[in-house]
Amino acid sequence: MKEFRNKTDLISYINNLKQNGQSVGFVPTMGALHQGHLALVKESLKNNDQTVVSIFVNPTQFDNPEDLKKYPRTYQADKSILKTLDNNIIIYHPDANNFYDGNIKSDHFNFDGLELEMEGKHRPGHFDGVATVVKKLFETVRPDRAYFGEKDFQQLLIIKKLVKKENLPIEIVAVPIQRESDGLAMSSRNKRLNPLQRLSASYIYHILTQVRYLFEYYDIVSIKKFVYEAMAAHPELKIEYFEIADEKNLKPVTRKKSGNKYRAFIVVYAGDIRLIDNVAL
Amino acid sequence: MKEFRNKTDLISYINNLKQNGQSVGFVPTMGALHQGHLALVKESLKNNDQTVVSIFVNPTQFDNPEDLKKYPRTYQADKSILKTLDNNIIIYHPDANNFYDGNIKSDHFNFDGLELEMEGKHRPGHFDGVATVVKKLFETVRPDRAYFGEKDFQQLLIIKKLVKKENLPIEIVAVPIQRESDGLAMSSRNKRLNPLQRLSASYIYHILTQVRYLFEYYDIVSIKKFVYEAMAAHPELKIEYFEIADEKNLKPVTRKKSGNKYRAFIVVYAGDIRLIDNVAL
Repeated sequence: MKEFRNKTDLISYINNLKQNGQSVGFVPTMGALHQGHLALVKESLKNNDQTVVSIFVNPTQFDNPEDLKKYPRTYQADKSILKTLDNNIIIYHPDANNFYDGNIKSDHFNFDGLELEMEGKHRPGHFDGVATVVKKLFETVRPDRAYFGEKDFQQLLIIKKLVKKENLPIEIVAVPIQRESDGLAMSSRNKRLNPLQRLSASYIYHILTQVRYLFEYYDIVSIKKFVYEAMAAHPELKIEYFEIADEKNLKPVTRKKSGNKYRAFIVVYAGDIRLIDNVAL
Repeated sequence: MKEFRNKTDLISYINNLKQNGQSVGFVPTMGALHQGHLALVKESLKNNDQTVVSIFVNPTQFDNPEDLKKYPRTYQADKSILKTLDNNIIIYHPDANNFYDGNIKSDHFNFDGLELEMEGKHRPGHFDGVATVVKKLFETVRPDRAYFGEKDFQQLLIIKKLVKKENLPIEIVAVPIQRESDGLAMSSRNKRLNPLQRLSASYIYHILTQVRYLFEYYDIVSIKKFVYEAMAAHPELKIEYFEIADEKNLKPVTRKKSGNKYRAFIVVYAGDIRLIDNVAL
């Protein structure tokens, strides 16, 4: 287990690996690791000589300071979990000042409109924050492959676009959503749910499951009505948005076209905890 | 495998068993057997020397002639299924005229108010029909134990009351609801659901599951509001009723008292197919 806190040290270590012809897989995380992250790490371990996991709660991607403050930080536990997977994982755990060279702020990006939908609308500055940190991480780690979960599906497409626009020689690998036994999408935020919120949260995936069933038979307007009403009925949950969007450009659609692939996207609050999920239709 | 169609023949066969000191378990069914029935039969096989399964679509317990007409009848398949469980099961498959001695109608019963709630309200004459047929079956089979599923929980309490009122030496054994992998309570009627209705029907149990979670924290008025609104949102389902009732007397309650046990009861239509379910709270 190698641990790096300093960018320059990690850069020379990776240089060395590359000179020895080793392939590098990379899993960027904000820590508070769960089975969702581990699925990414396992995928990387399978297909690369070396795997780098970054653990960095990036301040610039939080639009809400309270959310940043409350985001779970469990570094020692994270290290132990990674150790159980493979003892050769390289951990990059920078502090924000070293990472940003003392200038903690986001660049501004244009992702051809991907950044304007859904999360882009509801979390101003979020994707600039994400793209800034991922681009910097890519410059430091220079992986052959980088792994992202489909839970943050819009983020996944944005990272693919970033790599394309910046012409980076990195393969972006998408890994399906990992779910708890009751269907709740795994997320570090789930730890913050109180027992009733945790149980209630299973409702989100059950509604999405019904959406999958209904999608073949009902128009999108009726399905949206169903979701908003069903969510409004639940006393522990509050919907932020529900969209059915084209899987390629994430533009919300109101009518299906044959041949296109769609996904349903939802964000729901349980108390002040923001839960995100999506399913392929 | 012994099969009886004639009441008198079965009576003498049972007489013989009794004289030989054999205990008799009894599972009354309307056929179209599924894992729910088989759970009852297995329970009987475990605890009795002989098991009688009746297969009889009793006309007098249907308040709706269309429902009676469409009730699935699959006698040959039922026989094969029972054979796989145990080759010594005794099947009683009467025709209605022989069973009712030519006079197909119900007696009238008083079950101290149990018969007036929920199913009693929504299916006039149903419990008179059930009690009439079960009483006649008990007189013919004279079991030591009879097995009933908790899916028809009100029926179960009514049969217990019948046995008590009529002073019958029969132990009524309750068997928990058997569910499909998506939670839908097993029922012969499920066969009639079209693919979308079948998938949608899983919503019922998911809503009941949420009710179980919410019950500890919310008042009953809020929970009923949740269920009615969540069911109203679903385009494939239509709620007939939802009640939270005392497990002993089935009186619907609006306020919890500590020490009492409650159950949530629901009836939902998918098209013209009536689906019933309940959960302990």
